Amino acid sequence: MDFTIRAATLEDCKDIARMILELAEYEKVSDQVKITQRDLEQDGFSKNPFFHGIIAEVPEQHRTKEGHSKVGYALYFFSYSSWKGRAVYMEDLYVMPEFRGKGIGKALMSKVAQLGLAAGCTQLNFAVLDWNKASLDFYMSQGCFDVTADLGYHCMRCEGEQLEHLAQP
Amino acid sequence: MDFTIRAATLEDCKDIARMILELAEYEKVSDQVKITQRDLEQDGFSKNPFFHGIIAEVPEQHRTKEGHSKVGYALYFFSYSSWKGRAVYMEDLYVMPEFRGKGIGKALMSKVAQLGLAAGCTQLNFAVLDWNKASLDFYMSQGCFDVTADLGYHCMRCEGEQLEHLAQP
Repeated sequence: MDFTIRAATLEDCKDIARMILELAEYEKVSDQVKITQRDLEQDGFSKNPFFHGIIAEVPEQHRTKEGHSKVGYALYFFSYSSWKGRAVYMEDLYVMPEFRGKGIGKALMSKVAQLGLAAGCTQLNFAVLDWNKASLDFYMSQGCFDVTADLGYHCMRCEGEQLEHLAQP
Repeated sequence: MDFTIRAATLEDCKDIARMILELAEYEKVSDQVKITQRDLEQDGFSKNPFFHGIIAEVPEQHRTKEGHSKVGYALYFFSYSSWKGRAVYMEDLYVMPEFRGKGIGKALMSKVAQLGLAAGCTQLNFAVLDWNKASLDFYMSQGCFDVTADLGYHCMRCEGEQLEHLAQP
């Protein structure tokens, strides 16, 4: 199946918001999603954006019965390693279930890697849920390694009231 | 002991590079550090910086026998959660051993939280090594939680030849 990978625009935010929710449902955490189309428009497409996006699109004749032709996306932002320097972080990688197995996920991830290398990045980082064996296998097959398992890194977070409290001088 | 927390400037890059190496020695990975003072100057202090920094400084009379008055730092950058929106990522938090236990680490982390909240972020994220019990205990005492242990997140990475290969269309 033909598909194209291109940079996301403001007009894609509605579909990105839809697919973020689909991904969260797949990860069984849809109640955690607070993001809206409007948040994405503001945070990704104004001056000093917090993220960038790319979209996978199929020709009109292959669109879903609901009429969707935007069938996958990746969000990424630039980050920094104090050991290795410039890095790119892939926040999400998603392909709608009925379009999997066609190389679309690989093409999206490859594009993020290209964009990272072009910006001088030496690392592509992301996170995966430990029960998501299909994704882990896919990422391993692409030459990625598990920093948590191999080097002992744990992701830590502060949010909500704890974050407000931490910010008190 | 008096100390001040302030935004890092280009002139701090020499001391930040020194402390990055000290931290890596503490984490037993100094052979992994490729970053130089010049990298920090270019990547943190030009247009569209890849990171921001803050510095902890003590008065002249408290400087070390080597003459250092910059005794701690934190590096951070803005990131994005596709569920929760704007987030801040603390890449490093370091206080020189002889200046620990004086609230400097807490003050640096608190400043990162403040800067994050001011920018509309709802999460502060970072990573910690699982053998580093002292740091884990400190972060837990500040209201943070272990996303890897509690939610099963694993940090994944692609770099080097694997990243070059992944970027091939």
